[in-house]
Amino acid sequence: MIRVLLVHDVRILRCALAALVGREPDMAIEAAPAKDAMRLVRTLTADVCVVDADVTKRSPLDELAGFSRTGAARTADAAQRLLVLVSQHCPGALRRALDVGARGFVCKDALPEQLVTGIRRVAAGERFVDNALAGTFLRASEVPLSERELTVLSAAAEGASVGEIARHLGLSTGTVRNYMSAITRKTGARNRVDAIRISQGAGWL
Amino acid sequence: MIRVLLVHDVRILRCALAALVGREPDMAIEAAPAKDAMRLVRTLTADVCVVDADVTKRSPLDELAGFSRTGAARTADAAQRLLVLVSQHCPGALRRALDVGARGFVCKDALPEQLVTGIRRVAAGERFVDNALAGTFLRASEVPLSERELTVLSAAAEGASVGEIARHLGLSTGTVRNYMSAITRKTGARNRVDAIRISQGAGWL
Repeated sequence: MIRVLLVHDVRILRCALAALVGREPDMAIEAAPAKDAMRLVRTLTADVCVVDADVTKRSPLDELAGFSRTGAARTADAAQRLLVLVSQHCPGALRRALDVGARGFVCKDALPEQLVTGIRRVAAGERFVDNALAGTFLRASEVPLSERELTVLSAAAEGASVGEIARHLGLSTGTVRNYMSAITRKTGARNRVDAIRISQGAGWL
Repeated sequence: MIRVLLVHDVRILRCALAALVGREPDMAIEAAPAKDAMRLVRTLTADVCVVDADVTKRSPLDELAGFSRTGAARTADAAQRLLVLVSQHCPGALRRALDVGARGFVCKDALPEQLVTGIRRVAAGERFVDNALAGTFLRASEVPLSERELTVLSAAAEGASVGEIARHLGLSTGTVRNYMSAITRKTGARNRVDAIRISQGAGWL
């Protein structure tokens, strides 16, 4: 039996994914929201952990990433069992999954067979990459913004003013404005709001 | 047999919901993305149409709403077969579903049994409201922004500048600024970006 842990924060979708994968006679399913996933990954020893990575805000991946950064022998193991579901138009989510060390990548517009194949491959200790994600991988390799720029833009997206961002990061307001100009230019946006929209859509924020 | 049409734009989730509902022996499932849903609603005569309404951008509901506004005898029928899945924290999506005339409302954090019960009720010509959505209904009744304010804020969220919005709507820039101030005040936001964030989160945009 392949033991599969499905992580999704919306219960009806989590149960639906469990119903889908649970049709395979050789797969035993456990489903959980992201907040419980870490505990389950520790205790349940699933063979494959399937995570819907395509969310614009804090992703369950960040939880799992934090988990795999703790350095325990067990945690490297956790990333090696990770299979993520990502949208083609969301290179940022794919990038986070890559950074965490995920082994399987399935497009959210794939047929169920693709997901099931991916689960079997990752369970067998192999890598699995959905062909439909080739272009997304390419865009995921070119992060348009620096860490600092992402920090500034995240704060702006949360509604912080230039003054608040400056105080919070210990910068002058002029420097924050310079960051915002660079961000707007690099994302090809018309203005700050447009830069937030573009970056959230691509999953960078 | 109850014929169920499942509408979701993400294929793997659409297939997953189909697997979930398809476990019921008396339900026959068809699943489609929103762009095909209208055609299917016309031709397929499903007994119940289940739509994931909880999206911040253009919802499939708008398609179906347009459909039910065409005035044909058949269309009133369409809304009467509509069951929506909505998040508790998204009164805007609930409001759109109410405005379209949906008959069933199931919380996305419900157990599958709740969805199946809702489908049976709507198929039987009854209304169905998930108790978990009581608070969301309350908030859905108090739309905080006027139609005009929503138009202005939508344009701003798409990255349009005050000048562009003014030109597009045939207003002075001063009037657009007044609208933005009113919007910021009414949503309890700190500034324009914050107002967009709050309104998108609640599903008003």
